[in-house]
Amino acid sequence: MQQPLEAGSESDKRIQVADLRRIVTAIFDNLGFSRPDAALAADVLTTADLRGVTTHGVSNMLPKYVRWIREGRLDPQADFTLLRDAPSAASYDANSGLGIVHLPKLMDIAVDKARDNGVAFISVRNSSHSGMVAYHAMVALRHDMIGFCATAGNARVLPTFGREPRVGTNPISIAVPTASERPWVYDAATSSVAHNRLTNQRRHGLPLGPGWIADSGGAPIMVPTDLDDGIDRMLPLGSTPDLGSHKGYALSSIVDILSGILSAGSFSAALPTGQSRHFLGALHIEAFSDVDDFKSEMSRFCDAMRSTPPASGHDQVFVPNDLEFAEEQDRRARGIPLHPDVIQWLCSTCEDMRVDQPSFDGR
Amino acid sequence: MQQPLEAGSESDKRIQVADLRRIVTAIFDNLGFSRPDAALAADVLTTADLRGVTTHGVSNMLPKYVRWIREGRLDPQADFTLLRDAPSAASYDANSGLGIVHLPKLMDIAVDKARDNGVAFISVRNSSHSGMVAYHAMVALRHDMIGFCATAGNARVLPTFGREPRVGTNPISIAVPTASERPWVYDAATSSVAHNRLTNQRRHGLPLGPGWIADSGGAPIMVPTDLDDGIDRMLPLGSTPDLGSHKGYALSSIVDILSGILSAGSFSAALPTGQSRHFLGALHIEAFSDVDDFKSEMSRFCDAMRSTPPASGHDQVFVPNDLEFAEEQDRRARGIPLHPDVIQWLCSTCEDMRVDQPSFDGR
Repeated sequence: MQQPLEAGSESDKRIQVADLRRIVTAIFDNLGFSRPDAALAADVLTTADLRGVTTHGVSNMLPKYVRWIREGRLDPQADFTLLRDAPSAASYDANSGLGIVHLPKLMDIAVDKARDNGVAFISVRNSSHSGMVAYHAMVALRHDMIGFCATAGNARVLPTFGREPRVGTNPISIAVPTASERPWVYDAATSSVAHNRLTNQRRHGLPLGPGWIADSGGAPIMVPTDLDDGIDRMLPLGSTPDLGSHKGYALSSIVDILSGILSAGSFSAALPTGQSRHFLGALHIEAFSDVDDFKSEMSRFCDAMRSTPPASGHDQVFVPNDLEFAEEQDRRARGIPLHPDVIQWLCSTCEDMRVDQPSFDGR
Repeated sequence: MQQPLEAGSESDKRIQVADLRRIVTAIFDNLGFSRPDAALAADVLTTADLRGVTTHGVSNMLPKYVRWIREGRLDPQADFTLLRDAPSAASYDANSGLGIVHLPKLMDIAVDKARDNGVAFISVRNSSHSGMVAYHAMVALRHDMIGFCATAGNARVLPTFGREPRVGTNPISIAVPTASERPWVYDAATSSVAHNRLTNQRRHGLPLGPGWIADSGGAPIMVPTDLDDGIDRMLPLGSTPDLGSHKGYALSSIVDILSGILSAGSFSAALPTGQSRHFLGALHIEAFSDVDDFKSEMSRFCDAMRSTPPASGHDQVFVPNDLEFAEEQDRRARGIPLHPDVIQWLCSTCEDMRVDQPSFDGR
């Protein structure tokens, strides 16, 4: 993501990642997850916070997960079941489990299949929130593989020429190792912006940007707008037919197809909200080429992008993950900024669950 | 593609597809391709014409292929050689052969691997023009598989915040079977528009559209423009940073990575122009789910899209391939329209090569 990361405001206090991981693990543990699953879920959430992807971190997602589990919409004890299996393919039913718990495990299965066969992909139905999809794609990196993860969710995006939503924001992540410790990692919605970007703008009383939503007649709004009812009339990547919105609509569709239809789990427009499907996989670089040569060439590719002469008014061309990686170094050192409301929620939840209180730095 | 197809003008004469295929096969035969390769190449080109994808058909590409072969840039006798092989993965060197000849054959190899293992992908270096990538993805359809083909070409597209081109227009095609004879088929560049769209606008003396190119300082031009030197400063899908151009830039990059770097064939910004790399593959539906159920659900998905209430000023929501499929029915019946210049080129080439002249209908 090359959009500005949502940094904590200056008034935010900071928490060290180890302390945040400790209390989030304890909260998941308290909700009925096994101890290893609680630790895994906490790692997915805090990794999003470390990378500055606040929309998919503790602040934004943990309160929702807690509510969904208390409402019985998610089963903390759920295990996935195998539907079909082949050397380089499989489909699973996630049995209403939490996506951030089973997706890393399913990535491990894809990695094992890819190691034996070269490539492997898995389609998953009847699941729930995936968290930051980059986490799962990045599982492949430590095995010198390219990782892939996409997730299909609620129908919130208009198909080109339509006035009602039919496809999801359906993000795609691809993670590719390089010769340095900083991999190439892409993670973005197939809509023009992520849904959480809209809700965050609203929460801060800011207008929605040009090309983000359509009016009630389905016309793309290409100026900043305060329109209140457009949050589920999002535009696909490309925004308008002239700029190629049929491409964003098709990319979103293919995520729906590979995640939901391929796992016999149906598609966004036919399903209730809150239910997700996923498609994930791994490519074993060794099956195609020499791994060290590949990684060196990836670094050369990234350098070629970064050394592009910048456009007027800009300082630098980035490659995907440059900003998130820098943010992670900073937050590991200085802690993760949290909004006062989030701190209050965490402290009261810890009190309710008899978890030792976290400690904070800053004003 | 939901953009208006480039139809023949009213003054164009029409040729029946069988006659066009006959003379194109004879021309390739004359150029030194084996008879089966000549027939295959002719099928790829005429299928593009049938589908209304004139930019990748006989008119636009055959004269270029003839010139490239005569200049020795392409080897009509080239065969691809295997670099690495695994049950569900492989990489090949195309040895400067013509992409439209070896890509369908490599798709057959991917299909065989996918039948045995569930999924298979192939990376190809040192190749040339792929033709309409949908042709290759669609090879998978007759085996009840999902097909994928992407191709990485000349660096013509700016990375977000850059002022010089570093990635290609790098189109992606995905073909998915349905329960009807009309499959779901996506085929589009990862830039906001295809490069041939720019050259066609220029040829007709028309301005380039908003969001297609940048000025010499790298700033996206968001109004119609006659700027003459911007044809190789194309914008990625999304066009501007606010609308998500970093997504188009990343999608183009991933095609470069999977096609070129994974096959040890390097990347667009490091290669001379005219050299392409490809990434293609197949997913065996049977390995994930019941094939008939999948196809029925795909048809239901397409119907759900088409029945979306249309936006003001529009009649209909399409799914990818609706327009091309309709065009194909029409052109099979009425013939393929050809511009007078193309007819003249075809007739004189047939005369030079002692090929029986084609016949035309129309004024």
